[in-house]
Amino acid sequence: MPQDSSPLDVEDLRDRVHKELESFLSKQAPVLDAVGDEMQPFLDALDTLLRSGKRLRPAFAYWGWRCAGGDDCAEIVRAVAALELLQACALIHDDVMDDSDTRRGGPSTHRRFAAIHRSAGWTGSSDSFGAGAAILLGDISLAWADEMLYDSELGHEALNRAKPTYDRMRTELMAGQYLDLVEQARGGGSVERALRVARYKSAKYTIEGPLHMGGELAGAGTDLLQRFSEYGLPLGEAFQLRDDVLGVFGVPAVTGKPAGDDLREGKRTVLIAATEERCSPAQRHFLSQHLGDRRLSVGGIDEIRGVITETGALAHVEALIETLAARAQAALAGLPEPGQSVLRNLALAAVNRSV
Amino acid sequence: MPQDSSPLDVEDLRDRVHKELESFLSKQAPVLDAVGDEMQPFLDALDTLLRSGKRLRPAFAYWGWRCAGGDDCAEIVRAVAALELLQACALIHDDVMDDSDTRRGGPSTHRRFAAIHRSAGWTGSSDSFGAGAAILLGDISLAWADEMLYDSELGHEALNRAKPTYDRMRTELMAGQYLDLVEQARGGGSVERALRVARYKSAKYTIEGPLHMGGELAGAGTDLLQRFSEYGLPLGEAFQLRDDVLGVFGVPAVTGKPAGDDLREGKRTVLIAATEERCSPAQRHFLSQHLGDRRLSVGGIDEIRGVITETGALAHVEALIETLAARAQAALAGLPEPGQSVLRNLALAAVNRSV
Repeated sequence: MPQDSSPLDVEDLRDRVHKELESFLSKQAPVLDAVGDEMQPFLDALDTLLRSGKRLRPAFAYWGWRCAGGDDCAEIVRAVAALELLQACALIHDDVMDDSDTRRGGPSTHRRFAAIHRSAGWTGSSDSFGAGAAILLGDISLAWADEMLYDSELGHEALNRAKPTYDRMRTELMAGQYLDLVEQARGGGSVERALRVARYKSAKYTIEGPLHMGGELAGAGTDLLQRFSEYGLPLGEAFQLRDDVLGVFGVPAVTGKPAGDDLREGKRTVLIAATEERCSPAQRHFLSQHLGDRRLSVGGIDEIRGVITETGALAHVEALIETLAARAQAALAGLPEPGQSVLRNLALAAVNRSV
Repeated sequence: MPQDSSPLDVEDLRDRVHKELESFLSKQAPVLDAVGDEMQPFLDALDTLLRSGKRLRPAFAYWGWRCAGGDDCAEIVRAVAALELLQACALIHDDVMDDSDTRRGGPSTHRRFAAIHRSAGWTGSSDSFGAGAAILLGDISLAWADEMLYDSELGHEALNRAKPTYDRMRTELMAGQYLDLVEQARGGGSVERALRVARYKSAKYTIEGPLHMGGELAGAGTDLLQRFSEYGLPLGEAFQLRDDVLGVFGVPAVTGKPAGDDLREGKRTVLIAATEERCSPAQRHFLSQHLGDRRLSVGGIDEIRGVITETGALAHVEALIETLAARAQAALAGLPEPGQSVLRNLALAAVNRSV
């Protein structure tokens, strides 16, 4: 049984991360105000997006720091909070690319700006205005991420140790996203390629990277970093696989996304690739006709869910999640407390979540 | 008469900036290769874009450094070359937002990726794939800009002095671009607002910011930085006004863009706002009907050009360019050589260019 962790548990850290983000945004407000009062909706949109979120990447980075012997302090919370700005960029731009309507239960950023355009009665296309504003908001969020990290006052040497990892994380995130675009365009069909997308887009960026960053900020040695990889990579893949399952079987009231969203988008995930590997010719024909149909009915969604279940693909992916999660947990043995327990709990939460 | 500058003149610096960019990209190549061989077109697209360009921002930053007493060295060239990566992000994303077909005489980045999609015979919309890939390439370019700057080995203290300026430049660039979107959506009509867009999107980002960055890297005092502003802000506005004039009257074979491109896009520039202020009701009606017409004929372009000339708006903007350029030149008196001469030449080139 994981023991109880210190008062600095996951929820408390979430609040502190949020406060640091608020404080960073309020420092930027005068810079934007000086440009013009047109900028207010721009800052508001980012503020709204940053209010929600699981703060997973900051949590992994913070506990990477603690496991490497770093003491709790405001500076490390500020540094890890910067990862939420990087993630905000990824989400805002991802929603533009997928033309998604919703994010975290509210309208996606480009839809939000399209609505501002529409209600102001401005000229031109509301959708183009929305997409343009969202591209710029993602850009500013990406720029602010490193501004916040390097202004965290953790000290020049600590920041320098973590910089190569931070840089690689960003490069691999964008590369993974591009790989995903290519995979969608190819029409999927390969479990191996879908897993590679998951590794670059998610495992390295969501778990291994933040853990390494936190560890390196505290001066972690190669043994500990190796342990973080043994935990982070399988857990990150399991995390992405859980995402895939939720994208098909998730409950809208809980996920904040419409039912079967990924099916309407035709997302080429590991779950879908595993289904295609196990399909009868008739099922394959059915999938090719309905996957990616934006107006897929509730009945159609249920039928595809049926194929995913009957072929055994769902059971296969669930088993894979379990294997990967167990491998991740095994890598934690011997890590110092309370870090070990928190990382065990984070792993459980990452694979058992319903949102 | 500006005297001849050192061998490190503008053209030589351009080559050195290019070599530093090539060397940076070749350092990134293995990181992308490890993700998959799908990444090659991604790197190629950035490489192609970075091969051309006037290298204006690196030049201003380099000469800001030299005027503040910095010695020529590889590190400063590497640091200022990073500004080309920031600019690449701005151009790539701007072209997506404007849905532009061309950039620097070749296809825009999103068109390039749309063509890759089409020729591979992939599924889904080629245009969506192109836009998505271009958003990601802009993101990676923005991330690489600070990676390159902070890896320039100019030393921690120098970089720390210039960091607030670099951060403000990026924020003001994105804010200025958003202001521009809003101004286009409002349908323009205000010279004051169009000038404000030019100030934030262009003057501060293209000239004042780079000069300050270079100066601060070398430890410039407030007097010199003030002088850089007195030179950079009016010159930056003049630079943007020249852009506006070229967008309407530029020669396609020289600019690499179709004739009257800005008219077809309906861009709300200072030139257009000045025209609208001087229009007869009939001319205003004519403009409102034809500005922003994507299929505007060559005859239509000539008619709008006629209105811009006859109202005196063109002469007004040309006079404004001259006044601003003279104000910029006056601020250079007493600066050390060869910096002073190079900055004089750069100012002449910025306002008298035909591309």
